[in-house]
Amino acid sequence: MLLVLDGLGGLPREAGGPTELEAAATPNLDRLAAEGQTGLSQPVGLGITPGSGPGHLALFGYDPVASNIGRGALSALGLGLRLDAGDLGVRLNFCTLDDQGIVVDRRAGRIDTSLNQTLVSRLNEIEVPGVELEFTTESQHRAVLIIRGAYLSPAVEETDPQTVGVPPVEPEPLTATAQHTSAVLRLVGEAVRNCIGSESPANFVLMRGYAGLPELESLHSLYGLQPVCLATYPMYKGLARVAGMAVVDGLESVDEQMAALAAAWDEYDYFFIHHKSPDARGEDGEFDAKARALEAMDRMVPTLMELEPDVVVVTGDHSTPSRMRQHSWHPVPCLIRGAHVLSDTVQSFGERACGQGSLGVFPAQSIMAMMLAHGGRLQKFGA
Amino acid sequence: MLLVLDGLGGLPREAGGPTELEAAATPNLDRLAAEGQTGLSQPVGLGITPGSGPGHLALFGYDPVASNIGRGALSALGLGLRLDAGDLGVRLNFCTLDDQGIVVDRRAGRIDTSLNQTLVSRLNEIEVPGVELEFTTESQHRAVLIIRGAYLSPAVEETDPQTVGVPPVEPEPLTATAQHTSAVLRLVGEAVRNCIGSESPANFVLMRGYAGLPELESLHSLYGLQPVCLATYPMYKGLARVAGMAVVDGLESVDEQMAALAAAWDEYDYFFIHHKSPDARGEDGEFDAKARALEAMDRMVPTLMELEPDVVVVTGDHSTPSRMRQHSWHPVPCLIRGAHVLSDTVQSFGERACGQGSLGVFPAQSIMAMMLAHGGRLQKFGA
Repeated sequence: MLLVLDGLGGLPREAGGPTELEAAATPNLDRLAAEGQTGLSQPVGLGITPGSGPGHLALFGYDPVASNIGRGALSALGLGLRLDAGDLGVRLNFCTLDDQGIVVDRRAGRIDTSLNQTLVSRLNEIEVPGVELEFTTESQHRAVLIIRGAYLSPAVEETDPQTVGVPPVEPEPLTATAQHTSAVLRLVGEAVRNCIGSESPANFVLMRGYAGLPELESLHSLYGLQPVCLATYPMYKGLARVAGMAVVDGLESVDEQMAALAAAWDEYDYFFIHHKSPDARGEDGEFDAKARALEAMDRMVPTLMELEPDVVVVTGDHSTPSRMRQHSWHPVPCLIRGAHVLSDTVQSFGERACGQGSLGVFPAQSIMAMMLAHGGRLQKFGA
Repeated sequence: MLLVLDGLGGLPREAGGPTELEAAATPNLDRLAAEGQTGLSQPVGLGITPGSGPGHLALFGYDPVASNIGRGALSALGLGLRLDAGDLGVRLNFCTLDDQGIVVDRRAGRIDTSLNQTLVSRLNEIEVPGVELEFTTESQHRAVLIIRGAYLSPAVEETDPQTVGVPPVEPEPLTATAQHTSAVLRLVGEAVRNCIGSESPANFVLMRGYAGLPELESLHSLYGLQPVCLATYPMYKGLARVAGMAVVDGLESVDEQMAALAAAWDEYDYFFIHHKSPDARGEDGEFDAKARALEAMDRMVPTLMELEPDVVVVTGDHSTPSRMRQHSWHPVPCLIRGAHVLSDTVQSFGERACGQGSLGVFPAQSIMAMMLAHGGRLQKFGA
């Protein structure tokens, strides 16, 4: 059982004070920490602030750098879109071109999401031979395009010039095998111009972040696991699918997650439970609300433990100090509890407490090996 | 001086209790820990349970994965057989074939060791052109074959089908350069059938675990050391030979090891002292006996220290919790003592104590570099 408290790690509101986790009343997590072994998990590396993709893929045991997911694919996952191996995700900005075709506003005046939706429904009429296109509104001027077809490559020049006063960049191929994708993107650009070129202010789209999904070996193939994801947000369900997990859809609350977990208990042997709100409250800059979000999951811990998991890991995918209002590079409190765990002297679950734990500061990618070992799933190496 | 307490790390008998090492009265090791620096040594990686081979080769400073020794070669070392670079070790099971040549018992009813010895003495009459064969009894149905000759390769199909109801697998070559070895193994198979094919129940042998020794650069070549091994068991003497150590043969007790160490003191500058019994008692599941085995070596520590070694490291090749009755993945207590060691706050030698040590959790492979540094054997890197 892997319980991910998204954005778990934090910082004191003022010097000398407690962090959000230290301030929160978490008697159940404290008990797990006392019974288990603790440390600080480092998702990518010292000083590196992880996005949600590398943060989670490391927890699932993948090299977070080698398996990094590009922005276009991650945006598609975040919107809950279907993205299969071979598909290409592209981030779009609606923009404003002048009558010379020069970019005068890279965000088209940050148009309303409702206008974005109107334009996207028109763009979805576009047809380009040999590929299937799916435009989806994100918000304001932001949208995502998924291209489905054969021989697609991300190795094409981004058309967003990242500045104004110049025309969009041509989607030149960066490798020989990207010729086809370059041609497809040119046709998409022409079709977009034909479709919305007379609109104002949003009369074109800039493309960037071309990315397919990394083709990762599944957790079943790698470790013989039958893994399942219990998450409420599309992004984390998408990341779980990248790792080959089954995904329980339609969950909208912690209570529904708990019920689904119990229902799935006999069918699977690896359970990824994702709790979003500590990260969201951290990004809002709400110290107390983040502490309350951690307390909310702490109250679920007895329910989790009634299932008698062989091994439990509680950690985060990264830190999100409310003081910083964003993800940060700080290593993340982690505890592991199981029958063969040698407990250390740590008695509570917090940043400073786990910093005294006998796991030390260790790579998040090792958590999978520890879970497998404690679950009796690994053989001896060498004789 | 590297003192290896085999299978050192352990677990509490029941939750909240001490480990074997924590329960043992080890005043001399405690003093070394207090005077020295401590930490937890990780032989292969988090969650990985090491065999004796990788556990020791890491302590000698080799990459335990790259230098991994295959089963056939390790079995030969364990029996104290001569295995030179280029030789091939093969694990054998005496088995029972029916008159259609189908495997009906992969272990020939677990024949007595005495019958195994009788059969092995007959098999040692076999001659195959171009190679030298040496069959050796291990126990019950298990034996080892060493093949000596040129151009031998382990890249051949194992003949053990790992199931019954099918004939033995043909030793097909898996690479072009293994053609010769494949032919040799076919001839061995035919000769075995001619030799014992009319016996019952053991009328054939199944072959697996083909392995030569890794060709490691010696500790003398790598570091200018004159290393010597003081061990009682063949396996550890064999591993020491793989690292290019001199080996004192004929030692059968701790007292004999101590006497041999004193006698060898002026001739060598790196001393590998191996103490087997903590691992053996751990595998027996004997918590108290394992603690007594650790106390037995603790009593020898004053004798060791009378030699005034520049640097002493005390650790294990892996953990063997008596509760688990097998090797485990838990990191291993480690202490280093020498004139330039900065002692930490740890006052006793135990899992939890060393978990607070200033070395943290660190790779066992680094121990050699620390020993060399503290011994004044390394120069500055860079200017």
